[in-house]
Amino acid sequence: MSIVYGGIEAGGTKWICALGTSPDDLREIIQFPTTGPEETIGHAISFFRKYQEKGPIAGIGIASFGPVDIDPASPTYGYITTTPKSGWNNTEFVGTVQRMLDTPTLLDTDVNAAALGEYHWGAVQGLGSFIYLTVGTGIGGGGMMNGQLMHGLIHPEMGHIRIPHDWSADPYGGCCPYHNDCLEGLAAAPALEQRWGQPPEILPADHPAWTLEAHYLALGVSNLICTLSPQRIIMGGGVMKQPQLISMVRGNVQGLLNNYVNAPQILEDIDSYIVRPDLGEQSGILGAIALAKQSVQQ
Amino acid sequence: MSIVYGGIEAGGTKWICALGTSPDDLREIIQFPTTGPEETIGHAISFFRKYQEKGPIAGIGIASFGPVDIDPASPTYGYITTTPKSGWNNTEFVGTVQRMLDTPTLLDTDVNAAALGEYHWGAVQGLGSFIYLTVGTGIGGGGMMNGQLMHGLIHPEMGHIRIPHDWSADPYGGCCPYHNDCLEGLAAAPALEQRWGQPPEILPADHPAWTLEAHYLALGVSNLICTLSPQRIIMGGGVMKQPQLISMVRGNVQGLLNNYVNAPQILEDIDSYIVRPDLGEQSGILGAIALAKQSVQQ
Repeated sequence: MSIVYGGIEAGGTKWICALGTSPDDLREIIQFPTTGPEETIGHAISFFRKYQEKGPIAGIGIASFGPVDIDPASPTYGYITTTPKSGWNNTEFVGTVQRMLDTPTLLDTDVNAAALGEYHWGAVQGLGSFIYLTVGTGIGGGGMMNGQLMHGLIHPEMGHIRIPHDWSADPYGGCCPYHNDCLEGLAAAPALEQRWGQPPEILPADHPAWTLEAHYLALGVSNLICTLSPQRIIMGGGVMKQPQLISMVRGNVQGLLNNYVNAPQILEDIDSYIVRPDLGEQSGILGAIALAKQSVQQ
Repeated sequence: MSIVYGGIEAGGTKWICALGTSPDDLREIIQFPTTGPEETIGHAISFFRKYQEKGPIAGIGIASFGPVDIDPASPTYGYITTTPKSGWNNTEFVGTVQRMLDTPTLLDTDVNAAALGEYHWGAVQGLGSFIYLTVGTGIGGGGMMNGQLMHGLIHPEMGHIRIPHDWSADPYGGCCPYHNDCLEGLAAAPALEQRWGQPPEILPADHPAWTLEAHYLALGVSNLICTLSPQRIIMGGGVMKQPQLISMVRGNVQGLLNNYVNAPQILEDIDSYIVRPDLGEQSGILGAIALAKQSVQQ
């Protein structure tokens, strides 16, 4: 029986569990809504146990919403820590999965995992320094620098950077419970819905919402470029499905940087520099499979 | 004769050249003003050649103002590229030094070099992810992530991130020639001098300039924390010599993050998290010596 890995993409609203080894070999995949931790983790465990009756799973990778403790030396390694998500505060995640499935398990943030998926099979193959930014119900960023996933004191929280907010052009105060008008508070899906009275998926393409959205996202992206000097930036998440948005962001980024960062990738070829994920909706679950492979090597 | 390395700290206003191996073994050190490239590089070459008459120099490290091309695969590796500094645009630096001294030579940005000096002998020994931010005639940032100096598409330009600018509280428009009111445009020494009519070194400690300065720097630092999740931040440079400034920045950073980044280092021990350089004025030249050691290992 050929080797197989398990992946969990643990999101705030839904979970995806899969078995497989690569984009061309995803053997089973299920999806279910996120409820309480016991029930939701239990659901995932049942899926993998059913497979284990037939054969072994070599490792489990988890792409998790956060904040999560990803420091292996910490006593709360693998816990979901201070999330505002009801019931999930201080939830042991990796340890529970590892014990119940008796399988090596590795966890990272959902965005770092998506970045890892795109690194192995998608839009940033061969690059050592890149960012994956997701714009959806929240804004989060991860990626690699010098060929390794971004870890540090905790993990990046790129959605919470402060950007200029022109109150006369946009009197909406922002919706981040911690920072009001940080990038996430101004430009994630809930901000769009509160500001314009309709969710982003039904805002028409010519609505002024998109001009403002492209401006805010470009402020965020240009700050990330100045801070990290990535070789490429992937923009995923539900809000980015608006087809014209990414090209508007590209134009705004060039305007904001104003030729300061003197790289042909930005000055001449920004369509290949700020890109959509190659793996579409599957960056995260495939990143979890890639983490599972790493769990075995550790 | 014991081994010795050469270091060049190439700043926009002055250069420092030194021979030695560590903070306890800096054998010779000279300083001279930055003039044109031929004269200034020539001055450095003469200093090292004089030593070479007595014995070999194992390697040369250069901590350079920028932007510089630090990609070894680039045809303009080791060039100072698009600097606004008169006469220095497109100057071959590493190649010239290496040919004239016939010695392995390695270049990095001044801030990455200062970060490396503090990593070997100063405030961030043993840490793999940290930032060195300098606040002087410009604002620049460098550091390490995952144990390696930050490189990417080019190198970080942390001074040029956009931050909120409250025009009613601060009608000064900023002085960055590329971005007007980016962090550097609002908070580097020239901005202080233009806004308040006197240079920062003579502004009294109770001047309102410092409240505004701490606010802007804290916006920058909290953005860096959200983006990079560093284990520690060093703040150096001339403006940071104002003694009360760093503690004002610390307080503002805690206020801006508002308990979102749930790390005891930030919540409980920020005095050890945002720190001054241990090596004082010598972070850069010692970082150049550390680069020289690396040049030999390559």
